[in-house]
Amino acid sequence: MRAIVLLSGGLDSTTILALAREQDYDCFALTIDYGQRHGAEIDAARKLARHHGALEHRIVHIDYGQFGGSALTDVKLPIPTTVGQGIPITYVPARNTVMLSVALGWAEVVEAGTIFIGVNAVDYSGYPDCRPEFIAAFQALARVATKAGIEGNAIDIRAPLIHMGKADIIALGMRLGVDYATTVSCYKADCAGRACGECDACRLRREGFTAAAVSDPTRYSN
Amino acid sequence: MRAIVLLSGGLDSTTILALAREQDYDCFALTIDYGQRHGAEIDAARKLARHHGALEHRIVHIDYGQFGGSALTDVKLPIPTTVGQGIPITYVPARNTVMLSVALGWAEVVEAGTIFIGVNAVDYSGYPDCRPEFIAAFQALARVATKAGIEGNAIDIRAPLIHMGKADIIALGMRLGVDYATTVSCYKADCAGRACGECDACRLRREGFTAAAVSDPTRYSN
Repeated sequence: MRAIVLLSGGLDSTTILALAREQDYDCFALTIDYGQRHGAEIDAARKLARHHGALEHRIVHIDYGQFGGSALTDVKLPIPTTVGQGIPITYVPARNTVMLSVALGWAEVVEAGTIFIGVNAVDYSGYPDCRPEFIAAFQALARVATKAGIEGNAIDIRAPLIHMGKADIIALGMRLGVDYATTVSCYKADCAGRACGECDACRLRREGFTAAAVSDPTRYSN
Repeated sequence: MRAIVLLSGGLDSTTILALAREQDYDCFALTIDYGQRHGAEIDAARKLARHHGALEHRIVHIDYGQFGGSALTDVKLPIPTTVGQGIPITYVPARNTVMLSVALGWAEVVEAGTIFIGVNAVDYSGYPDCRPEFIAAFQALARVATKAGIEGNAIDIRAPLIHMGKADIIALGMRLGVDYATTVSCYKADCAGRACGECDACRLRREGFTAAAVSDPTRYSN
């Protein structure tokens, strides 16, 4: 059984990779470089794909940052340190749609029947493309968009963390032997992958380790 | 009214751009370079965007060719010159899904309410992602995947050529002043954008000009 695993190098997607491996999938890890502020996540993804036994790891560059519109791809926009109302400025327009689309293409080529994505509706409730409705709509699209779908073998889109809180994800990952010291969640990680400790993503992650009663292995820059 | 127009530099997408301009859209032309065999289409797209009054033209590179699986992105696979059964080898896995996804992201950023795509179910009946079911499924996805969709302003996906034959598309484009001499449809165009005259795409195009009783302005390499 082959699966594409979208692997950002962060906590959620690495847990997903470990979970897919436990379920005996031959994993094709896929990292999309859409012009994030730093390459530290990509270096982390490379190490984690190897550590968790991915059969292949591909990095696809998309010069998506030229569009701007998100604090994650536009250096002129500030990264927020508090959670506001509505859709956060860290939302990257159509990011998960683009990532799943590229995964769908690779799935067709390697004949993988499943795509795993680490989206989470609990912590990222403000992101339109982290909700179950989004995953269901992409599943419906995959049924008609591909050769496999037409032939009656639709590619399955799985988001096993979608309803889990950060502490539960960490507890699952600890059981699966995830190397959380290598994962990078911070929106402002430095070039060595050290976390700022202050942004939304750092805060959520730190609270998760506390709630899971796991000592936080994150490397902070200060 | 703003629209994203997916512009490959071919006959169909250029006709779409001219149509959107006639309908008074401010057009944001988007060319996806997914590792096609030649850059001639991209040069053509640049000229055509300018000629047909696009407000902006962006080229997004995706190193999608690394996956292979299509004669259009894998130089080891031969380009067919006759139409066979089933899905042709020139089918690029999930290509239109990827292109529409990137368009969706840019539409969110520039607040465009419409995306135009030149897919055609008549000539490309073997491609899963050229069918009306595919466009409908992507429309449903766009409703849940974006900030605009959540706020009740779903981005409209329009494929006005989907049921038209090549001759009708050409007749429409002639009325709209499309510069077909610059468009490149050939799967094996040389670096100057000259067509081979033999591949599927050339054959369909040539038959279209004949059926439309329009003298074929295509530049052939022999």
